[in-house]
Amino acid sequence: MSEQPVLRPVPVGGFPEWLPHVRLVELRWLDVIRAAFERYGFCSVETPSVERMEVLLAKGETSKEVYSLGRAQGAEEGRLGLHFDLTVPFARYAAQHFNELVFPFKRYQIQRVWRGERPQEGRFREFTQCDVDVIDVDEVAPHFDAELPRLVHDVLTSLDLPPWTLAVSNRKVLQGFCEGLGVAEPLDVVRAVDKIDKIGPDGVAALLAERLRPAQVEAVLELARLRGDVGAVRALGVESALLAEGLDELDFVLDELSDLPNVVADFSVARGLDYYTGTVYEGRFVDWPEYGAICSGGRYDDLAGSFIRRRLPGVGLSIGFSRIFAKMLAEGLLDTGPASPADVLVVLPKDRRRTATATAKALRDRGLAVELYHQEDKVAKQLRYASRKGIPFAWFPPFADGRPHEVKDLATGVQEEADPASWSRDRGRPGR
Amino acid sequence: MSEQPVLRPVPVGGFPEWLPHVRLVELRWLDVIRAAFERYGFCSVETPSVERMEVLLAKGETSKEVYSLGRAQGAEEGRLGLHFDLTVPFARYAAQHFNELVFPFKRYQIQRVWRGERPQEGRFREFTQCDVDVIDVDEVAPHFDAELPRLVHDVLTSLDLPPWTLAVSNRKVLQGFCEGLGVAEPLDVVRAVDKIDKIGPDGVAALLAERLRPAQVEAVLELARLRGDVGAVRALGVESALLAEGLDELDFVLDELSDLPNVVADFSVARGLDYYTGTVYEGRFVDWPEYGAICSGGRYDDLAGSFIRRRLPGVGLSIGFSRIFAKMLAEGLLDTGPASPADVLVVLPKDRRRTATATAKALRDRGLAVELYHQEDKVAKQLRYASRKGIPFAWFPPFADGRPHEVKDLATGVQEEADPASWSRDRGRPGR
Repeated sequence: MSEQPVLRPVPVGGFPEWLPHVRLVELRWLDVIRAAFERYGFCSVETPSVERMEVLLAKGETSKEVYSLGRAQGAEEGRLGLHFDLTVPFARYAAQHFNELVFPFKRYQIQRVWRGERPQEGRFREFTQCDVDVIDVDEVAPHFDAELPRLVHDVLTSLDLPPWTLAVSNRKVLQGFCEGLGVAEPLDVVRAVDKIDKIGPDGVAALLAERLRPAQVEAVLELARLRGDVGAVRALGVESALLAEGLDELDFVLDELSDLPNVVADFSVARGLDYYTGTVYEGRFVDWPEYGAICSGGRYDDLAGSFIRRRLPGVGLSIGFSRIFAKMLAEGLLDTGPASPADVLVVLPKDRRRTATATAKALRDRGLAVELYHQEDKVAKQLRYASRKGIPFAWFPPFADGRPHEVKDLATGVQEEADPASWSRDRGRPGR
Repeated sequence: MSEQPVLRPVPVGGFPEWLPHVRLVELRWLDVIRAAFERYGFCSVETPSVERMEVLLAKGETSKEVYSLGRAQGAEEGRLGLHFDLTVPFARYAAQHFNELVFPFKRYQIQRVWRGERPQEGRFREFTQCDVDVIDVDEVAPHFDAELPRLVHDVLTSLDLPPWTLAVSNRKVLQGFCEGLGVAEPLDVVRAVDKIDKIGPDGVAALLAERLRPAQVEAVLELARLRGDVGAVRALGVESALLAEGLDELDFVLDELSDLPNVVADFSVARGLDYYTGTVYEGRFVDWPEYGAICSGGRYDDLAGSFIRRRLPGVGLSIGFSRIFAKMLAEGLLDTGPASPADVLVVLPKDRRRTATATAKALRDRGLAVELYHQEDKVAKQLRYASRKGIPFAWFPPFADGRPHEVKDLATGVQEEADPASWSRDRGRPGR
C-alpha cells in the first residue's frame, strides 16, 4: 500500500489549516475572545453549519456565494446550504426559540462559515467568525450600540495586535445629509461612498456626478472626509430630521466610548450592501488600510421578520477571526512557541514502566500537562525528543525504589531532586 | 416585513442545536475533554471541514454517506466533500505536513463531522467527535495502545456519566483463533461476530453456519462469550502464531490498565467494517447496551499510505461527543444551570450611567462575568431580569458620590455593602 501513493495531499485553496504550534496560538486567541464575551454576560450559541436554502436566501442576499449540499451517492439533501455568516442563522434561531429565550437576548457565536468566493489575501472559503449580537422585541436599547464596540475593543486589545481603529458612524447621518441636500436617491449615495476605500474620493465623485449636482457631490465628499465628533457635521449647515436623529444617536455612542482613543467617528463608513439601519462599525488595521475589515457590524431593524410575526431588531458586531489571524501569521507577528502543550516529559527508565506511569499520573492529577515517553530508548534519545517538541522539562522517575525523583530544565541544563506531589513550573510556559 | 412571515423556522432533522443553558454545559464538557487531552501532551489539530472527494473515498469507504459541496449560483466546486470522520483528514494532514511534524505525532482533534444518514436516536447528520491518535513512522509503540484508553477513561470519568465499560480486544485474536480452527476466510467471521450486538449469538451462529462446520461455529461463539483476561482464551486450546501474537499484545494492554475496573477484555468486539489491524476499543453505556458505541477505535497499519511513500501506522480513539451528550440530555441527566454566564448584574441607576459603566469595568477587570443593565428601568424590573436569566447577584452602584456600593444575593435576598475592588463570589457558580 505504501509503495504506490496515488494522491498528492495538496492543500485545497481557501481552506486553511495550521501546524500544531500555530494552532496552539489560535486556541489561545479563541479562549481570550470567549472569555471576553462571557465577561460581558453574553450567552454562547452554536447553530448547525447548515440551514435550509430558503433561509439563507431569505434576505435576497446573493453577494455571498452559498455552498449547497449534495450526496455523493445520489439523492439530493432537500435544499440545504452551509451558512455564509452567523447573523442569518442567529435570526432564525431567535425566531425558532422565541418563547424559550429571555430578551434582550445577548449571544455570542464562534463558528466557521463558508463562502464560495475566489480565495485571496484575507479572504477564505472556510473561516471562523466571532459574533456578538443583541436582539430584542420591538426595540433595542441604545446602550448596546455602545456596549458592543466596547466589548470588541476589549477583545482586540487583549490580542495584542498592531495598531487598529474602530470606526463608528450611523447610516442615518449620510442618508439624512442627502435628504438635507435634496438628493432623490440617498441609497445610491450610500453605495457609492461605501466604495471609497477601493476607488478613492475621485472615484466616488465620478460615480456621484452621474446623479448629483456638483455642489451636492462636493458636500457629500466633505462629509465623508470628516473624522472625530458630530459637531463638525452640524457645522456643515445641512439639515434634516433624519440627520439630526443620526447625529444624536452617534453622539451618544461616541460619548460613551470617549475613553477609547482608537474608536473614532468616520463618516465615510457606510457598510453599503448590508442590512444596517442605524449605527455601523468597521475596524481596520492602521498600517494596512487596504486590507479587509477586521471587524464590522451595525444595527438592523428586523432580521427575523421572515420567520416570526414579531419585530426583532438587533445590533451586532462580527470579528473576522481568520482574517486577523492569517494576517498576523503572514506578517510574522504571531507569538508562536512549541507545538506541544506538555510541561514535562516523563522519561521511561528501563524496567520501571509502572513507576513512570504512576509519576505521570501524579503530575497530571495536579493539573500539569505531561507526556510519558513511549518506549525504553536511551535517555539521550528521550531528551532529544523532548527538545524537538519544545517540552521544557524532563522528569526522571527513580531508577530504584527509595531513590529520589529528579527533574531537568532543558533550557538551562540544571537537574535537581523534585517531588511529584509538590513540584511546579516556576515560570510561565513559553509561547502560551 | 414583520407582518408577513413567509418561512417557518423549523429544525432540520439530524442537525441538532441547543438552548443557551444546555450549550453552556456543552462548552464545559468540551473544556474538560480538551484539558484532559492536553494533560497527556497531545497537540491540537484542526483540519478544514472539506477534503477533496478522492481523499474521502481513498479507502473505498462507502458505508458513510458523504456530503458533496455545490454552488448555489452554478459552478461546481471541483469535487469537494465534508469529512465524515476525523481519521481520514488526519492521515492526509500527517502525510502533507510530514516534514514539519515530530514523530510519534500525538494529536487531538475536536470537530464537527457530517454523514448523510437517516437520523435516529444517537445518530446525527452533523455531530462533534473528539479524537486522539498517535501516528508514527514504520511502527507505533505498544505503549500507546494502553495510553489512549487510559486517557479516554480519564475523560469519560471526568464527565460524570452513568456506568459505562470500555471493551478492549485485538483483531489478531479472533482472526488467529479462526486460523487455529482452520477457517478459510477469517474476515467473514470478523464481520459476522461484529453484528452480535444487533442480531445476538443465535443470529451470528446462523450467519457462520453458512460457511463453518458446527464445531467451528461453537468454538467461535465460545470465544465471543469470554470476558476478562487472556488466560481463558488460551485455555480453549486453539493455537496459531497470529493468535499468540494477539493475546500477547492484548495482555500487555490489560496489564497496563489493570487499575481501571471498567476496562474489560471482550472477545466479541471486532469493529468489523473498519480498517483496524490490532487492538480495538469500544465503549458502551452499561444501562443502554443497545445504544451506539460512545467511543471506539483501534490500531491501524497505514492509513496515510494513499498519500506518501512512508508507512505511517497509528492507533486512535474517538469519543462520540454528540451521541453521549444528546443521550444525557434526553435522559434528564445533564446538570444544567442558568442560560447566562454572568456572575453579576450591575443595576443601572437613574442618571448614573458613568458610575455604573465604571463599576462593571472594575468587576470585569477582576475576571468576573458582568452584565450591565441596558436602560433606566425601575429597579424591580432590573432584578426580575436578573432572576429570569439566572444571574445570582445584583450590584447597586452608589446613587450619589461618596455613598457605598451594595450587592444583593438574589437567592437569599441578603443585601450588603461591597467594594468592587475586592468583592468575590464565595460559592461556585450554579450549573458551571
